Amino acid sequence: MRQTRGVREIHVIGIGAGDPDQLTLQAVKALRSTDVFFLLDKGEVKGDLIRLRRDILDAHLPAGSYRVVEARDPERDRKAGGAAYAPAVGDWRGARAGIYERLIAEELDEDGTGAFLVWGDPTLYDSTLAVLEEVRERGAVEFAYDVVPGVSSVSALAARHRTGLNRVARPVQITTGRRLAEGGFPEGVDDVVVMLDAHQAFRRFAEDDMDIYWGAYIGTPDEILVSGPIAEAGPRIERLRAQARERKGWIMDTYLLRRGSARDGRGQDRPARPR
Amino acid sequence: MRQTRGVREIHVIGIGAGDPDQLTLQAVKALRSTDVFFLLDKGEVKGDLIRLRRDILDAHLPAGSYRVVEARDPERDRKAGGAAYAPAVGDWRGARAGIYERLIAEELDEDGTGAFLVWGDPTLYDSTLAVLEEVRERGAVEFAYDVVPGVSSVSALAARHRTGLNRVARPVQITTGRRLAEGGFPEGVDDVVVMLDAHQAFRRFAEDDMDIYWGAYIGTPDEILVSGPIAEAGPRIERLRAQARERKGWIMDTYLLRRGSARDGRGQDRPARPR
Repeated sequence: MRQTRGVREIHVIGIGAGDPDQLTLQAVKALRSTDVFFLLDKGEVKGDLIRLRRDILDAHLPAGSYRVVEARDPERDRKAGGAAYAPAVGDWRGARAGIYERLIAEELDEDGTGAFLVWGDPTLYDSTLAVLEEVRERGAVEFAYDVVPGVSSVSALAARHRTGLNRVARPVQITTGRRLAEGGFPEGVDDVVVMLDAHQAFRRFAEDDMDIYWGAYIGTPDEILVSGPIAEAGPRIERLRAQARERKGWIMDTYLLRRGSARDGRGQDRPARPR
Repeated sequence: MRQTRGVREIHVIGIGAGDPDQLTLQAVKALRSTDVFFLLDKGEVKGDLIRLRRDILDAHLPAGSYRVVEARDPERDRKAGGAAYAPAVGDWRGARAGIYERLIAEELDEDGTGAFLVWGDPTLYDSTLAVLEEVRERGAVEFAYDVVPGVSSVSALAARHRTGLNRVARPVQITTGRRLAEGGFPEGVDDVVVMLDAHQAFRRFAEDDMDIYWGAYIGTPDEILVSGPIAEAGPRIERLRAQARERKGWIMDTYLLRRGSARDGRGQDRPARPR
């Protein structure tokens, strides 16, 4: 085995919610200091997402200055149903750790810099950090890594609707569609952001005094925004969502549920008037 | 009154948590399309914060290409105590609406573009959007506005600690120090991000099985990061926080409380190893 004094470095880079201009200057600098980009493909009809990331690289880097390695990500669609969701995550992560380990060990020089590009912000509902920690624990390949925060899809959603995520001095909770479907509206909060919802869990609140602020493909040319009282906006969202998913083959959407805004009076609780 | 066909435009621009490189490309473009920047000063020893924003402008804009208007922000220190917090917010907001209205009407040409620069993300614990809506409702000055999302201090904190905000398939709640102090640890979540905490509400959990990930002045040269079991890290944070506040005259800090990570096994729950 060669002796070197180099150390592999990895950037985990948040690239924003879809608009290439949502990259931070820090993210652009991190891109420019990267030799090899690892693009993980979920093996579904998500070639669009690979292409969007390649477009981002092309926009910010001289041609030929970097290398891209694509790999198949073993993670199943997180939006798929099934009661065994949480336990199964450990297995996927193990499988992913094996793949990430191989990518880092085999595709990166011992003093090279690699990067994973993460939609939104890497610290919110993304497993790249946990997988990298697992690779480090295995101990087969050494590397250092850092995290470049990104504009989350949560912030991007609220910005497009021009609404605050919280009301004055009140909390906001971020959760998953699965938890909302299984556990109902969380205790102690009136503002809930829902991610990873393949089953439109908001439908169960159609009778409630609640507003919804929904967005899909936020920041991209395909962006769709709908907001309003859930009784009115909900069916419209269901229809638009089904059409969009049919048309593109995949969907990335997020929404904010706001309970009882009618009784709230003055606050950050107005219906959005998108530009 | 002159007849014009122009319309005043306002950008509400998230500028990230303190590192000037945390601006997005979209934010830089918005800066460059702005004629007049409104910098609100809370009238405390926060000249640093005004200066940091001026530094950001200088970094991205040609000298002489823009104008800055500073104004006194009537909002009291949100970190201050007092039982009348929530009702009083309405009064401040009214006072602020009056000031914003005057700034927009008097300092901006009728086809001019103004901007408010907001630390972190404008949709999280910031009242600029609500105040602008109030100004619109008053109807004395017409304007259009948009929101440029930013990297929140929440994302910046988690990135520096290289930890996820949520654990697999679990929710995360964002709340205030006041609510944590008054209501205890929120129901139904194990991961809580606390903002606007002047009184170190985390101290009440010193005996609990809980980790804390704390950061102050994140992304700036003064950055301080501490993480670990709360029993050990808590006293250290209290000491460092008091010293820093004494030294600089103000502090901006945020933290994540993670309950029961010891029983959680594999997850995004390791102590941070900052670079």
